[in-house]
Amino acid sequence: MVKTVSSAPGSAEQGELTVSDLLAFKIKGGELTDNQINFLARAITDRTMDDCQLGALLMCIKLKGMTDQETVALTRAMRDSGSVMCWPEDWLVADKHSTGGVGDKVSLALAPALATLGLKVPMISGRGLSHTGGTLDKLESIPGFRVSLTEEEVHAALADVGCCIMGQTTDIVPADRRMYATRGVTSTVFSLPLIVSSIVSKKAAESVKALVMDVKYGRGAFSKTREEGEQLAQALVNVTKGLGMKVCALLTAMDVPIGTTIGNALEVREALDCLRGRGPPDLHQLVTHLGGELLAMSGVTASVNEGHEAVVRVLSDGSARATFSAMLQKQGVSVEVAESLCGDEPDYHHLPAATHCTPLLATTAGVVVDMDAMVVARVSLALGTGRTRIDDPINYAAGIILLKVVGERVEAGEAWAELHHDAPLSKMILTTAQTAITINPDTDVFKKPSLITARFA
Amino acid sequence: MVKTVSSAPGSAEQGELTVSDLLAFKIKGGELTDNQINFLARAITDRTMDDCQLGALLMCIKLKGMTDQETVALTRAMRDSGSVMCWPEDWLVADKHSTGGVGDKVSLALAPALATLGLKVPMISGRGLSHTGGTLDKLESIPGFRVSLTEEEVHAALADVGCCIMGQTTDIVPADRRMYATRGVTSTVFSLPLIVSSIVSKKAAESVKALVMDVKYGRGAFSKTREEGEQLAQALVNVTKGLGMKVCALLTAMDVPIGTTIGNALEVREALDCLRGRGPPDLHQLVTHLGGELLAMSGVTASVNEGHEAVVRVLSDGSARATFSAMLQKQGVSVEVAESLCGDEPDYHHLPAATHCTPLLATTAGVVVDMDAMVVARVSLALGTGRTRIDDPINYAAGIILLKVVGERVEAGEAWAELHHDAPLSKMILTTAQTAITINPDTDVFKKPSLITARFA
Repeated sequence: MVKTVSSAPGSAEQGELTVSDLLAFKIKGGELTDNQINFLARAITDRTMDDCQLGALLMCIKLKGMTDQETVALTRAMRDSGSVMCWPEDWLVADKHSTGGVGDKVSLALAPALATLGLKVPMISGRGLSHTGGTLDKLESIPGFRVSLTEEEVHAALADVGCCIMGQTTDIVPADRRMYATRGVTSTVFSLPLIVSSIVSKKAAESVKALVMDVKYGRGAFSKTREEGEQLAQALVNVTKGLGMKVCALLTAMDVPIGTTIGNALEVREALDCLRGRGPPDLHQLVTHLGGELLAMSGVTASVNEGHEAVVRVLSDGSARATFSAMLQKQGVSVEVAESLCGDEPDYHHLPAATHCTPLLATTAGVVVDMDAMVVARVSLALGTGRTRIDDPINYAAGIILLKVVGERVEAGEAWAELHHDAPLSKMILTTAQTAITINPDTDVFKKPSLITARFA
Repeated sequence: MVKTVSSAPGSAEQGELTVSDLLAFKIKGGELTDNQINFLARAITDRTMDDCQLGALLMCIKLKGMTDQETVALTRAMRDSGSVMCWPEDWLVADKHSTGGVGDKVSLALAPALATLGLKVPMISGRGLSHTGGTLDKLESIPGFRVSLTEEEVHAALADVGCCIMGQTTDIVPADRRMYATRGVTSTVFSLPLIVSSIVSKKAAESVKALVMDVKYGRGAFSKTREEGEQLAQALVNVTKGLGMKVCALLTAMDVPIGTTIGNALEVREALDCLRGRGPPDLHQLVTHLGGELLAMSGVTASVNEGHEAVVRVLSDGSARATFSAMLQKQGVSVEVAESLCGDEPDYHHLPAATHCTPLLATTAGVVVDMDAMVVARVSLALGTGRTRIDDPINYAAGIILLKVVGERVEAGEAWAELHHDAPLSKMILTTAQTAITINPDTDVFKKPSLITARFA
């Protein structure tokens, strides 16, 4: 008998669910139920959904969208597709997620600062791909650092130190791994429900109680406009709340790089500067504000402002730096290297250093009014600091140091940046690099635009 | 360096084409060029396009549509994905395509009628799936009939007889085979550009010069409404013209079955009746009108009307039947069986016959005002005449004979149909079957609605 499809798939009148019927329902604009979405997530995980069906499903979601309720159900189903971490009840487990920017080494300072203040931070980070660097790549520039941790090692790190920064294990959110790989080749990466469910499902599988999001927008971010960033921030907050976590998102500008270094070992150095209470003010601002939100949400401080001040304190007094040293040692770094890196005075001789350092000279005098994060990122990538394909090798030593940042004065012929490199520089790299900076010769002052521009909670 | 996607993929400023870039372009509403579509069709055929990408592409086409120009390019690229038949230049190669209906045995009478009148008809037909029967299944109910022909056999049949009816070979439009299988499981069957390109590419690979389309609409057709049918007819005509073929489409109603038989061997009997100039008037009308169009398009007759009359003549004088007999013999049927089936008087003892014949009795007297083609098709399927899955076995003998058709009077207790079956009938089949007929006790006359309702050329 031919089946008539008059009612929604999986409803009482219908027989068993099929991927094909659910696709037809979604094509027609139907809103999928929790039950239907659970079925789809299971079919993705156990591979009863064919590759062609997954491609079609992702494209359908990309083009038809999903309601918040559908996205919450998808996120929960993805979380439950693999193992979910389990912590002692009294642990204040918290984490931060950034949508990715240029020169973003916030995690390296934030995780130990929060751990110092009593939070437990089981941070799962990613590798660099395309123009954004990866926290794991940065940490791997430290000799001995190991991003793969067993469940026991994670528990031990959190119990003893309070934080760790690790790679995603294969048993966490397996549905996301299949979806993520498929999105990459089907042009369905930029879909709000797919982005949100991918991010939040992984944090939910960490069983965090509080989550702060750093949602970046601008030319160096995935969200190119403020509106896109706002939509993403709101969706992330809605869905994270839908999964029962405390959450807040800060909308932050990503037109110029964060801090003054881009490149793996160079960024570790800058993160250590931040852990000495020094370093660039924008990095310090992000670490203290994002940290303040998490401390307040977790109830460690009475207000965000008190949380902010607490982070400032543990950065200045060296205690966060000591926690970072302990974390490095828990993750395979020798006592000698860890203590040398995390001493009171900077000593980076254990970090890889490039064989060449080429200054970039200003062609005119004036005030730096712009520094294009995307150009900087492309130059950095050309120096070998990241990947254009998943299996590209990485040059940990290479990168860029910005000697001048937006708002500062530069003289003609003065160096405004250093390129750290091992291979000879092509003319194209040098030409491209010079387009990163905009110098206004006719002004003496320039007010830097705000970094944190909105807050969603 | 990160690639900036500011221009269309594959344009001069860009590097090589990628499936992913083309998907992104189509998502944004871009119109693909011939070159880009050729690339996609090649990637489908040589499988450099992943299954997940094909699923995503089909869903994107389903949801975003395609312009006529894109569909023409896709159809041409699909045609060229495999071998294209090659005929002597003076052959008037023609074919008919029907979008599928209930009781549709038109091809069986039309192909030999046209061949008798000088056309060459290399008809590639399909098997039954879902509620529509398949021409190949019907022919295979004739002992010995072989649907797989070599290229040489096809040429010989066309040279000697003028027609053959065969299955799709693996080297014809391989892109379509992969797309068709994927559409089935991704709910992308009902997409105008995908339907049209699938149909027309196969006919184009037959290298026909003239094509007539029988586009059905109504409850027994894939196009449920007249508007859907009109859209499909117009798109088929536009795209077929775009590939340089002469074309015309007749829009025909498919609410009641064609003729009075449904089921494989039973339909062969009715086709042979038609080839005797007898049989049901609606079948005769379709065969003569569709044939008339092809004869006029091919220049064999000066007008469609003359073509129509020519087909009437070869059906009545037995010459088309002789051609059918010759075609059967070319395709593996013994002389004895072919001559017995195609004799001047009906003799169907060589066809399989069901062991049981159960009459359906009218529960009231009156005029038959409706016969639901979909109900009839479902009952026929339940008797084993078709497939619900591609590898289901077929009962060639089973089926339904309608003793009364719309417009005829029936008395209470009089049989209005016979069910031919081998397995015992379930109560559900009998109950369902009775819902096919609608008898109006309060009228004496009922005007049958028109069968051919519009013409697109």
